[in-house]
Amino acid sequence: MILIDVTMTIYELGETAIVSQIIEHLNIEFEDCAILDLTDTEYLVATTDMFHRKTDFPEGIAAWQIGWMCVAGTLSDIAAMGAHPCGVLVSMGLPDLEPAFVDSMIDGMNACASECGTRIIGGDTDSHQELTISGTALGRISKGRILRRKGANIGDLVCVTGYLGTAGAGMKALAHGIEDSTAIKKLFEPIPRIKEGTRLAESGAATSMMDNSDGLALSLYQLAEINRCGFVIWADSLPVLPEIDTDLAVYAGGDFELLFTVAPERLSDAEDACELTVIGEVTMEGVFLEAGGIKEIEQRGYRSFPC
Amino acid sequence: MILIDVTMTIYELGETAIVSQIIEHLNIEFEDCAILDLTDTEYLVATTDMFHRKTDFPEGIAAWQIGWMCVAGTLSDIAAMGAHPCGVLVSMGLPDLEPAFVDSMIDGMNACASECGTRIIGGDTDSHQELTISGTALGRISKGRILRRKGANIGDLVCVTGYLGTAGAGMKALAHGIEDSTAIKKLFEPIPRIKEGTRLAESGAATSMMDNSDGLALSLYQLAEINRCGFVIWADSLPVLPEIDTDLAVYAGGDFELLFTVAPERLSDAEDACELTVIGEVTMEGVFLEAGGIKEIEQRGYRSFPC
Repeated sequence: MILIDVTMTIYELGETAIVSQIIEHLNIEFEDCAILDLTDTEYLVATTDMFHRKTDFPEGIAAWQIGWMCVAGTLSDIAAMGAHPCGVLVSMGLPDLEPAFVDSMIDGMNACASECGTRIIGGDTDSHQELTISGTALGRISKGRILRRKGANIGDLVCVTGYLGTAGAGMKALAHGIEDSTAIKKLFEPIPRIKEGTRLAESGAATSMMDNSDGLALSLYQLAEINRCGFVIWADSLPVLPEIDTDLAVYAGGDFELLFTVAPERLSDAEDACELTVIGEVTMEGVFLEAGGIKEIEQRGYRSFPC
Repeated sequence: MILIDVTMTIYELGETAIVSQIIEHLNIEFEDCAILDLTDTEYLVATTDMFHRKTDFPEGIAAWQIGWMCVAGTLSDIAAMGAHPCGVLVSMGLPDLEPAFVDSMIDGMNACASECGTRIIGGDTDSHQELTISGTALGRISKGRILRRKGANIGDLVCVTGYLGTAGAGMKALAHGIEDSTAIKKLFEPIPRIKEGTRLAESGAATSMMDNSDGLALSLYQLAEINRCGFVIWADSLPVLPEIDTDLAVYAGGDFELLFTVAPERLSDAEDACELTVIGEVTMEGVFLEAGGIKEIEQRGYRSFPC
């Protein structure tokens, strides 16, 4: 293992460097989920995500929505592999809350799992100063159908489900003191794209897939690195709700849409599988935005470590 | 769902009441692991545990040992079902540490997983004030061989692997300023009883099983409730290292031994499967200690919530 600079702390080094270090150390694949052999024909996929009251949940969010968001964030990674979820585990570090708060939070978790055709199968509780929730989701997928981050080919079309920048617009609305809007509801109650993910996997039309929870820009850079390719994104094609600008659509995190690539001749099959928008194409190198002229997309978005 | 008293906080209500409330709410089984159908003949078992720097790890523990303890605690639940582990996921909330600390912690996680014949398959990192780690372990077990908390019969013998009270003695040694002892090493580097658990399951000799991580007393009360039975434990039979008293053996938490029941006529099969000590028997009701006279064992031990 290479320590980049032993005089720096992990926050100074940044999330990308630390995650790369851990992944290299453990020799694991950089996917939305871990992939395990289940049977001759099926994989088990598993993913875990940790959430904290202050850093992951905006003020003003309800207990029910905290529960929903945790499970949604975790199940989104299952959707990104094209898998069918088969259970969610939840460990919780709890401050001294009212029982009704815990009750409502569990309700929200259960509602999101149920919306995605699965349920909360187990968990753990202990005491902790700041409400901290770690969700682990499990899923199953045919070996021949699994969708990975790797697989995009030059000339493929870049597609997304739903709208971009909606959660970011929700954050902005909250910052401006607005308490109720479509964007805030989408930020607090995102719907994991399980139906779209499983149907895309079954169609065999997508060549690579991931979710865009860290924002479109960072997700594109991750796909570019793994696939040793580039992207041109067409600003005019970005699917956005009214009053959401290109900057939010490209850089804001918190959406749980699927970002995937499709060979042009298979586009109609992908369109049969789910509602999608073609937003660009896979190129040789560089990550660019075409908006009148062409300019490089910056490598920024949602990061877990303070910079 | 019944809220016992809405004017009380969850810490006032206590861990048992809150966990019961959550379990009832979600209609899940109270086992060491969640159990999922994998194939016609096999179950997937999955368990999650959360650990915090201040509440779960004594001062003086090394980064490597923190990593080891997290994975050991999680894999102990897999052992308690008699399952073969097939992967561990780890999500981490990290304060601004030195990279070498994270590196060493990951090494410890990996070493424990490897000792148990498995590996770290994925995870998540974000920033958090207090080092918080949530481990999720997965395992596989034949449907006919799984060992549950439920299954003990009156007249069965009560057995444990290894020694009791060792981790508690380690805590006591640390409190007295002793920095190096066998007990402290066992507290910091517990070995999950995967080998013993899987062999016991294969033998078919055990009728119920769980781990004793919350201490023998609380574990017996949990088995008593689930099996609607009682226990008499023989103080003279408790396996302890030198200088460890009965009180530590009965009430201290932090050991990761297996506690299981065996029909008397199958004891030799259980003994062929693993080293064990018979410490008592399953009775109609009550949880008692026979030490000269007979007295009730108190319902206390390790609890996650401050009382």
